[in-house]
Amino acid sequence: MLENLHYILQHNCILVQNRAILVGVSGGPDSLYLLEMLVDCGYTLLVAHYNHGLRPSADDEARWLAAHVERLGIPFVTAGSDVLAYARDNRQSIEEAARERRYKFLFEEGERIDAQAVAVGHTADDQVETVIMHLLRGAGLQGLRGMEYRSLPNLWSTKLSLIRPLLGVWREQVMSHLAKRGLQPLVDESNLDRTYYRNRIRHELIPLLKEYNPAIREAVYRMSILAQGDYEVIEGVVREASAECNIRTGQGYVSLDYAAWGRQPLAIQRYLLRQAFAALRPGLKDIDFSQVEKAAQHLVAHQSGAVELAADINLLIEGNWVWLFSAGAQLPTDPWPQMRIDEWDEIDIPDKRVLTSGWVFTVEEVQDSRQAFEMAASNKDPFQAWIDLHVPDMPMSLRGRLPGDRIRMIGMQGHSTKVSDLMINLKIPQRVRDSWPLLAAGDDILWIPGLRLSERVQVRGDTQRAAHFQLCRLE
Amino acid sequence: MLENLHYILQHNCILVQNRAILVGVSGGPDSLYLLEMLVDCGYTLLVAHYNHGLRPSADDEARWLAAHVERLGIPFVTAGSDVLAYARDNRQSIEEAARERRYKFLFEEGERIDAQAVAVGHTADDQVETVIMHLLRGAGLQGLRGMEYRSLPNLWSTKLSLIRPLLGVWREQVMSHLAKRGLQPLVDESNLDRTYYRNRIRHELIPLLKEYNPAIREAVYRMSILAQGDYEVIEGVVREASAECNIRTGQGYVSLDYAAWGRQPLAIQRYLLRQAFAALRPGLKDIDFSQVEKAAQHLVAHQSGAVELAADINLLIEGNWVWLFSAGAQLPTDPWPQMRIDEWDEIDIPDKRVLTSGWVFTVEEVQDSRQAFEMAASNKDPFQAWIDLHVPDMPMSLRGRLPGDRIRMIGMQGHSTKVSDLMINLKIPQRVRDSWPLLAAGDDILWIPGLRLSERVQVRGDTQRAAHFQLCRLE
Repeated sequence: MLENLHYILQHNCILVQNRAILVGVSGGPDSLYLLEMLVDCGYTLLVAHYNHGLRPSADDEARWLAAHVERLGIPFVTAGSDVLAYARDNRQSIEEAARERRYKFLFEEGERIDAQAVAVGHTADDQVETVIMHLLRGAGLQGLRGMEYRSLPNLWSTKLSLIRPLLGVWREQVMSHLAKRGLQPLVDESNLDRTYYRNRIRHELIPLLKEYNPAIREAVYRMSILAQGDYEVIEGVVREASAECNIRTGQGYVSLDYAAWGRQPLAIQRYLLRQAFAALRPGLKDIDFSQVEKAAQHLVAHQSGAVELAADINLLIEGNWVWLFSAGAQLPTDPWPQMRIDEWDEIDIPDKRVLTSGWVFTVEEVQDSRQAFEMAASNKDPFQAWIDLHVPDMPMSLRGRLPGDRIRMIGMQGHSTKVSDLMINLKIPQRVRDSWPLLAAGDDILWIPGLRLSERVQVRGDTQRAAHFQLCRLE
Repeated sequence: MLENLHYILQHNCILVQNRAILVGVSGGPDSLYLLEMLVDCGYTLLVAHYNHGLRPSADDEARWLAAHVERLGIPFVTAGSDVLAYARDNRQSIEEAARERRYKFLFEEGERIDAQAVAVGHTADDQVETVIMHLLRGAGLQGLRGMEYRSLPNLWSTKLSLIRPLLGVWREQVMSHLAKRGLQPLVDESNLDRTYYRNRIRHELIPLLKEYNPAIREAVYRMSILAQGDYEVIEGVVREASAECNIRTGQGYVSLDYAAWGRQPLAIQRYLLRQAFAALRPGLKDIDFSQVEKAAQHLVAHQSGAVELAADINLLIEGNWVWLFSAGAQLPTDPWPQMRIDEWDEIDIPDKRVLTSGWVFTVEEVQDSRQAFEMAASNKDPFQAWIDLHVPDMPMSLRGRLPGDRIRMIGMQGHSTKVSDLMINLKIPQRVRDSWPLLAAGDDILWIPGLRLSERVQVRGDTQRAAHFQLCRLE
């Protein structure tokens, strides 16, 4: 048992030997056992006890615990507050208030002594109850995993990990071990610091489920172990997909690549959306399956326009970008090339312009025009173009769209198309159309970077002078 | 609703319009509703009814159903047997016997008319009950998915799919629809063909769970939907891993690449082992988490020797191969090069020998000995060697191991090593050591393909004549 725990402390809780651990000890069997085990494994400890002051015997118990810890030669800190008043003031249940005050104390003490972790005594029985609560509420793989041996970040800290080394130990094992050591826990933790709901699961539901399967606890526990492994695999797939979808989080918004999202399996699509929700709504408060499903359905159906998914969270498809954003968030325009009116200018050859939108325009003459012809012919990137320099009137300019701008696109047999119509057809979001940079010679549009090249300026086999144009995003 | 069902019939059940579907109809609400829906969607149908003869009214009900189906203009077949006697003879519960007889009839009729599918009327309520039953028994992601819209292969056929189009429809929806159409189902299916266990789940457990969450059915249903998606993702990962591990199934054994297995995440390691178990024990009878876990632990600990994982299923690590095999199975030797004693022979240059073990030996002179030197220097494949032809006495031979065989390996400064010791050190399984082909000149061992080359015959910068030797497996 101790050997097994040694392994878990090192590999699952990721503890080192030479740095203190803060152990939260209530005086109940689980935390007393945890303390014994950590002492046996040779870790440096500080015991912290929070006195909720909820029972008449609380002070006596704290004194008993202090003496017990002192006998073990371990430093001991304790604190307490009027949890009842706190609960009243914050409109919380007593259990919630007690939990909040206790963990706040544990993490403050842990940070004060620069502990490597805060350790608490949740057992396999607690794990089973947690998983059943998640099941009853409706859970996915994440919820079916239950609690983790090590949580970082956790609800109380982003730097100090919360560890639960006893998740694989059953309450019976705890009790029999304590009995063997002649240790009599003073507090019955099973009825303390538990919500009413959890108590009902423990004392009513689990005994009842045992009538269906006497080994129900083991079955649920095993499921949580399997779910942990499955979830790790899925997390790996989600990580890859998330990179593929270029997920970006900004002030009040998350953006992702629509086409890349569409290529993922449904389950991964859901996880990616959930991740986007989580970035906008920490802890996913009020977000569940139905909001994620609504977003997925909207995207699959390719419905245009913004839709409200949850209070204050909207979804918008713009070209190949999907935005999830809080109402009022300023969506950036930098997925698309943009230029300010004061950046409109004539260009030289060679030239290089860094636009404030984060895009760079470059032009360079190509010495070998035959090579220019070949590169143009095999080019697949619409943000690069090769242009015959003998055709357009000089100088050329880089500027935004003007009313009446037209382009003679390749393959349109000399017919010209309005730039504004083209942008609509290509689903360029309205808000970025005016500031989209165009290469022009007077009112002749030569190239719309990212979209189309004019047939007139195409490099041909007999072209004498050519230049290579490129618009690309700064990394 | 009908539109939704249309979609499910096409995309989830993968039905085509121009081929018959056999519909199993009990006369209860679910199957009557299924029949209505399939008629409305315009499919070609045959209705099949199995008369279990378990209730006095069974014959009347069958007649009522026949008349109802006739009015719809759909062909109708029926059959029946003494299910009670069948149950008694086969020591089954009445429910099991009824189910077995019924599905056997449905699939026989389906195959007779070359149907594209056998359709049955399981609803979302049935799905929830199934998932809860799996949960109680202890399930992984596979079990949490519940039933599938389309199962192929299934327990009754490898060619004819079983479809359950109503898995997304709640019993209330069925009832209200039937009421709207004025259809009065004669049989209360909810108490027919259900095991006692399922009835307890339906009538006792689910109402009780509603006290914890009034929307418990929806929560469980949603979990099954999420599990389906997650499982598909995991299946994709397992497929890739399975190819990477070179999983091979033979008569009574499965083999896999140990190192490749070791590189997988724990969850995938478990799925691969489960898959191996499933190949040996169809339906995974008596195989659960503990057998899989025992196998995984054995492999992680790299314990030598065979171990019994379950009645009649053994695990053996041999070099880089893992075998799961039934007791008495003849494990093949072809992962390793082997030759029969009657294949021992002198070799020529060039030469090519196809060994009955499925391995091919080739030798070819290399014209440019400088090139041979370079290729030998950069070679990473131990099944290829370049040899200086001026060194060994001719002729060379390809033969198995003889007592006393020794080799002077590269880097051993002329000291020779016993071939038998080398094979032990390199963890070559004992059963393949004697027949491992060696390149020898008299009693001088020049090359042990796959293992080591003799320092004496190495190609050097001043080598005048060299040959390229290769032993490789026939594809």
